[in-house]
Amino acid sequence: MGWIGPRIHERQGVAGVTTADKARLRVGMVGYAFMGAAHSQAWRTVNRVFDLPSQVSMVAVAGRDPAKVNAAAQRLGWEQAVTDWRELVARDDIDLIDICTPGDSHATIALAALAAGKHVLCEKPLANSVAEARDMASAAATARESGVRAMCGFNYRRVPAVALLRRLVEDGRLGEIRHVRAAYLQDWITDPQFPLVWRLRRELAGSGALGDIGAHIVDLTQYVTGQRITGVSALTETFIKRRPLPAESSGLSASAGPAPSGPPATEASASPAAEEAGIAAGTGPVTVDDAALFLARLEGGAVATYEATRFATGRKNGLRVEINGSLGSAAFDLERLNELEFYDATAPSARQGFTRILVTEPEHPYLSAWWPPGHLIGYEHSFTHQMRDLIEAVAGGTDPRPSFDDALQVQLVLDAVERSAANGSGWTAVGHA
Amino acid sequence: MGWIGPRIHERQGVAGVTTADKARLRVGMVGYAFMGAAHSQAWRTVNRVFDLPSQVSMVAVAGRDPAKVNAAAQRLGWEQAVTDWRELVARDDIDLIDICTPGDSHATIALAALAAGKHVLCEKPLANSVAEARDMASAAATARESGVRAMCGFNYRRVPAVALLRRLVEDGRLGEIRHVRAAYLQDWITDPQFPLVWRLRRELAGSGALGDIGAHIVDLTQYVTGQRITGVSALTETFIKRRPLPAESSGLSASAGPAPSGPPATEASASPAAEEAGIAAGTGPVTVDDAALFLARLEGGAVATYEATRFATGRKNGLRVEINGSLGSAAFDLERLNELEFYDATAPSARQGFTRILVTEPEHPYLSAWWPPGHLIGYEHSFTHQMRDLIEAVAGGTDPRPSFDDALQVQLVLDAVERSAANGSGWTAVGHA
Amino acid sequence: MGWIGPRIHERQGVAGVTTADKARLRVGMVGYAFMGAAHSQAWRTVNRVFDLPSQVSMVAVAGRDPAKVNAAAQRLGWEQAVTDWRELVARDDIDLIDICTPGDSHATIALAALAAGKHVLCEKPLANSVAEARDMASAAATARESGVRAMCGFNYRRVPAVALLRRLVEDGRLGEIRHVRAAYLQDWITDPQFPLVWRLRRELAGSGALGDIGAHIVDLTQYVTGQRITGVSALTETFIKRRPLPAESSGLSASAGPAPSGPPATEASASPAAEEAGIAAGTGPVTVDDAALFLARLEGGAVATYEATRFATGRKNGLRVEINGSLGSAAFDLERLNELEFYDATAPSARQGFTRILVTEPEHPYLSAWWPPGHLIGYEHSFTHQMRDLIEAVAGGTDPRPSFDDALQVQLVLDAVERSAANGSGWTAVGHA
Amino acid sequence: MGWIGPRIHERQGVAGVTTADKARLRVGMVGYAFMGAAHSQAWRTVNRVFDLPSQVSMVAVAGRDPAKVNAAAQRLGWEQAVTDWRELVARDDIDLIDICTPGDSHATIALAALAAGKHVLCEKPLANSVAEARDMASAAATARESGVRAMCGFNYRRVPAVALLRRLVEDGRLGEIRHVRAAYLQDWITDPQFPLVWRLRRELAGSGALGDIGAHIVDLTQYVTGQRITGVSALTETFIKRRPLPAESSGLSASAGPAPSGPPATEASASPAAEEAGIAAGTGPVTVDDAALFLARLEGGAVATYEATRFATGRKNGLRVEINGSLGSAAFDLERLNELEFYDATAPSARQGFTRILVTEPEHPYLSAWWPPGHLIGYEHSFTHQMRDLIEAVAGGTDPRPSFDDALQVQLVLDAVERSAANGSGWTAVGHA
Repeated sequence: MGWIGPRIHERQGVAGVTTADKARLRVGMVGYAFMGAAHSQAWRTVNRVFDLPSQVSMVAVAGRDPAKVNAAAQRLGWEQAVTDWRELVARDDIDLIDICTPGDSHATIALAALAAGKHVLCEKPLANSVAEARDMASAAATARESGVRAMCGFNYRRVPAVALLRRLVEDGRLGEIRHVRAAYLQDWITDPQFPLVWRLRRELAGSGALGDIGAHIVDLTQYVTGQRITGVSALTETFIKRRPLPAESSGLSASAGPAPSGPPATEASASPAAEEAGIAAGTGPVTVDDAALFLARLEGGAVATYEATRFATGRKNGLRVEINGSLGSAAFDLERLNELEFYDATAPSARQGFTRILVTEPEHPYLSAWWPPGHLIGYEHSFTHQMRDLIEAVAGGTDPRPSFDDALQVQLVLDAVERSAANGSGWTAVGHA
Repeated sequence: MGWIGPRIHERQGVAGVTTADKARLRVGMVGYAFMGAAHSQAWRTVNRVFDLPSQVSMVAVAGRDPAKVNAAAQRLGWEQAVTDWRELVARDDIDLIDICTPGDSHATIALAALAAGKHVLCEKPLANSVAEARDMASAAATARESGVRAMCGFNYRRVPAVALLRRLVEDGRLGEIRHVRAAYLQDWITDPQFPLVWRLRRELAGSGALGDIGAHIVDLTQYVTGQRITGVSALTETFIKRRPLPAESSGLSASAGPAPSGPPATEASASPAAEEAGIAAGTGPVTVDDAALFLARLEGGAVATYEATRFATGRKNGLRVEINGSLGSAAFDLERLNELEFYDATAPSARQGFTRILVTEPEHPYLSAWWPPGHLIGYEHSFTHQMRDLIEAVAGGTDPRPSFDDALQVQLVLDAVERSAANGSGWTAVGHA
Repeated sequence: MGWIGPRIHERQGVAGVTTADKARLRVGMVGYAFMGAAHSQAWRTVNRVFDLPSQVSMVAVAGRDPAKVNAAAQRLGWEQAVTDWRELVARDDIDLIDICTPGDSHATIALAALAAGKHVLCEKPLANSVAEARDMASAAATARESGVRAMCGFNYRRVPAVALLRRLVEDGRLGEIRHVRAAYLQDWITDPQFPLVWRLRRELAGSGALGDIGAHIVDLTQYVTGQRITGVSALTETFIKRRPLPAESSGLSASAGPAPSGPPATEASASPAAEEAGIAAGTGPVTVDDAALFLARLEGGAVATYEATRFATGRKNGLRVEINGSLGSAAFDLERLNELEFYDATAPSARQGFTRILVTEPEHPYLSAWWPPGHLIGYEHSFTHQMRDLIEAVAGGTDPRPSFDDALQVQLVLDAVERSAANGSGWTAVGHA
Repeated sequence: MGWIGPRIHERQGVAGVTTADKARLRVGMVGYAFMGAAHSQAWRTVNRVFDLPSQVSMVAVAGRDPAKVNAAAQRLGWEQAVTDWRELVARDDIDLIDICTPGDSHATIALAALAAGKHVLCEKPLANSVAEARDMASAAATARESGVRAMCGFNYRRVPAVALLRRLVEDGRLGEIRHVRAAYLQDWITDPQFPLVWRLRRELAGSGALGDIGAHIVDLTQYVTGQRITGVSALTETFIKRRPLPAESSGLSASAGPAPSGPPATEASASPAAEEAGIAAGTGPVTVDDAALFLARLEGGAVATYEATRFATGRKNGLRVEINGSLGSAAFDLERLNELEFYDATAPSARQGFTRILVTEPEHPYLSAWWPPGHLIGYEHSFTHQMRDLIEAVAGGTDPRPSFDDALQVQLVLDAVERSAANGSGWTAVGHA
């Protein structure tokens, strides 16, 4: 115990409305692997930390394997487990469907949920194709008219340092944006013996590093700058062309040794094809990109470099963004997510420099609900913040962001990247959602 | 969603024992302010993340104000609220008492709980005096014979980077320890208008920066080196001699502006005197140290500097430790708690340097239960890890560390520091617990 | 005085050959502005620090304005000043011509010097066009047959950390190279009132950020990887289309305020056109790029991003290179030029991380001649090291690197970048020198 | 070539006074090892970079061994070599004596030089005892009356970032100083086989880490705060009690392997005893401290920790100072000497943080004479700046700082540290020079 701040006090002082009085937001989640675990942690925590108009009920989680989904429900805190996501969509006692499955099932589930009048939170990337994403955005627009809300889970918008960066840009402190420099660097498949998991197969994952992590930096930079990418020139590369087929998902950790292995079959609970992928022997072709690099222009005149790769040895989760404007600059690195570097070119010349802002003050986004200054938060908090904003939007009758339109805009960029890469890196315009 | 590792999979694969089958560890908590909130988050989370032999039940929380403790129970997830901690001690349906009150009530509560056969987790510092700490350690020794466990909450031992540092020392990778350089730097009372909260009054807090944050670096360095401090030379300073009396706790945030203000009276739920402190007007004397600095020797021959202060402008939670040994060095900073810097003097000369280890790999302590590499954890996770180890110790019939003896040893150091400071900084030996 | 190492001792112990006995390397320099000052510092220092087979004589410096070149000679330590560079080429008492003028005069001077049998050190970029660079490389090849040496001044190859990075790649410690990430970020013309100096005019400078600083990262990355760039996709941008004409060079500092202003006319000593540029009033068009961005492939299979800009607010001399290979990675930042970050993926997993190597050990390139470990060197030392290697090559009858062929290869990349940018970013192959 | 700024231009524009017109400052240097080399580099360079009222003549260097001192003179750029420093003092053609010998000869040489009316620059620490230092300060006071100047070589005051820190304190930007945190960390004798060089013998070096590097942090912190240390509590330690006797200085590098070895005998040119130290075999006792740690109070009310050690494995030249004030803080690390970290507690709360100022702007101390922004300088530049300020003081008839009084004040602190350490760390007042 080293400090106690006003936040705790104020929060407790507010407690006029008791939990029992609050409206319920009843949630059903589809999929329960990595994203399912992260979302569950956030659903469990959000009302404990934030004063919100609704109280979350974690009604049910869906997965195909009865034993596994039961175990997951118990562990993750869901009241029930079901083996068909359609059951969640059909039930009256569920208000919101949280989609945590691989991308190939996003569209089907989301369309059904919206049609049933359920709010939807869908993991990113929104879909595996522009066509699917358009259908989803269209369905979201229709549903909106009935007060049904849809949100895409680009959770990094809710990292406080990223939200602070957005605020700095909005406040004009960077001036006119000239440069965006974005990279998302990971290294978990540098080992050629790492097996051919579903993320390395186009039919299931849509694309490789591009959609998985490239989507994050596209959304994040469009968000913080407030500008669309209008065109790209791209190249993609697959360094390891063939990989061992995973004998069985549960055996991956053994074969891949200390390196991180692929996802459990359980994540693909809504995707039969994904599960079947884990059966054969020998090797198979990697059909997605290992790395995607592109140049871009933004609508306000900035030029940009983007890079997404799973082959940046030593970079574990290196999402880095730097923005240079006419009045200032800012830099962010997800491996130090509690910090934002800000350069104020309007300060006295002899004292200019990049200021390492420790984004843990009550004045910073989301932080007044957490710990005293200097007490760090982690990766999972971005999801708790996402749930907070979603709950407030649903209760307040406003549209949460990133909307499906925002996510479609990301999809249009990813599509242009792939087309440019297939076309000799030629400049490729990005349409408007 | 950017990755999924074996950890999630393995964890879910294990689920042979269902939650329902598990033994219960029934917890009652006293106090519900900053530490109470952090402990609650940990109790709620620990079984969701770790596979443990017991399942926690958050039975009841105690506090004197009925409305406030009820609100806290609802918010923090406790089944019941009670207004007298003695009720928790007396109940049959509680196995463990978690003490989150200010230091002046630790001894009373802990002694009662141990006498009643309850396991005890007590926040640090263990007590406000050596005499109290000795009584507590003695009671813990007696209780141990009946299988009752006692642990002191020096939670930073459970930061993975700190645990990794301990492991490096144990493995001999630093060689013979020559230097310890420890500082705990905060800045939350640099404003002279910050009011005279209980932490600034000796009768309630025992000491100032020394016991509040100095205790952490004493414990942490004794832990990672595996060596006791054998003597000290110290000075203490109170920069601001008088401060405004807090008109009322709830008004603090207004008067102190953006600076963090004092604790709510609710934290002092077991300390009537603390609550009364919040009533008068005018100013009062600060009766504790603002800063404590000392030199020390460790039993293995190392020399050390220690500094604890609340006046290090710009340092929010700057717990920094550097250890230099004959074969290597390591450095840690709590403001970057996911990192450990390690220097290996046995590496080829041209490639030597401080290696920034991102302590997020499955091979690192506690991390295999969390997220993929590069996905950071935060401050609160140290408590979850603490609860994990405590649960395992209780279930396994072993003694958790830090024990009350460990905490008494810290108290002996704090006491020697105060005596040296009062005695012209003369060298003052530290006894053995 | 804090340390004294063996290097000083050894060096002094060597002193069997006295200065008087040594061969002379008699140098004539053309141009005496920024580069001229840096080269002069290096020529004055190199024999004081390194034991070399030849002793430098700083015979004469050439510039068109008699008063200015005389003052420069006195200040910078040249024995004589002359007003026509052709005089230097014609003299018998000069062995080497050091070309420090703007790019538009490089070819003329270098060709004349080589034809006259003088060794040549030519600043980068080698020329303003591929055609000129080809002529120069061809002339260097011819001259080589007579033992005449030619070198291009990509001085950053001689930063010890860069040389160490090259050594790590050569030793196979990074394995197969997959990614190159290079940026050279400056911010000295972000102010729209910064005047239209010669560097912003195509007819004098050849290109903008591309040739000025982009050339450095092209050479540096081809050097450290040992691989040529085989193709590019590029875009360029000029953010500020028109700028004030510089009333007179000497008035620039007043008009541009605290921002760095343009070069003095004296730098253009061999370029009448450049001098005339400083006369008119009003504004004129910027005819070069402010920023150049490109993707690239290297012959060994790596993919790369490159960015050169003078609009990266807050980045003063931010030349950054990161290389990711199958076995390790390394990162360098010229703003911390005494450091190299190295990641060894073959180390035990729990201790992997980026190691900050302080490149000041006697085992590091060039460092045994300087100060004890931990005592930093600066920017100018790269030139001293360059002169050292050039002197040794001339004396030893070997070809110094980067050769004019190396520099032509850089020119071919720059040319491909401009053609790709002019052609919708389409993929553009880079020829082989 | 990447930029050219106004500084070069302005400097050259000034050239109205030619070198030939200028007054001469004729220098004789005693000792020619590490410090002699660094000083020589500075004497050679200072007039090439700064516009100064006097032109340095490097007249002669003194050392006892004829061959060695001749070689040194040639290499380092001195016109003559002499074998008796008294000859320098006696000559009419020398204005200033630069003392670069070990501490045991400082007093003798300085007193003789001042008595002969020579200006004196004396390396730090000023002397090996307070008594000697008092004599020197007294002699300097007497000499001052005749316009003779004396300066002590605490060169780190002239690191631009340190000078900027001083300026920030003077301008009140840190407010009232509360904390000083200073450490000078090296690791060059961690190897027990490192031999017993003169720096490890009290009769020659006076003390160990304390006087060698501790003196630097004492002077630097008194300088930047503008406050004297008024009292200390200290401990010292010698980790390795006996060491191999150096068989011969020239053989040290072989026996010590890659670790830095001891000084050449030549450094002790004025100290016969030091030279003799290099002859015996076997081992001998280390008679100085390996590490010295102390607490201190400053006259303005700040409290401080100081640490000087040669056993901080991995820290090569880690002089670190942090100052916390009521309005701001600043931190400096000599291993990144081009940077200063500054925290402005008066900035808007959400944007506060430590700003990494790259101290390479023309607005920063000394920098307008060097390279463009972002182009680093090194260790040796601190000496060039020292010579610049000394030349200006001599020419301007003002007293250079640090004066012998300043250096005596440092000596008084060192003496108090040793007395406190010998006296059970008891508080020991520091007298006023």
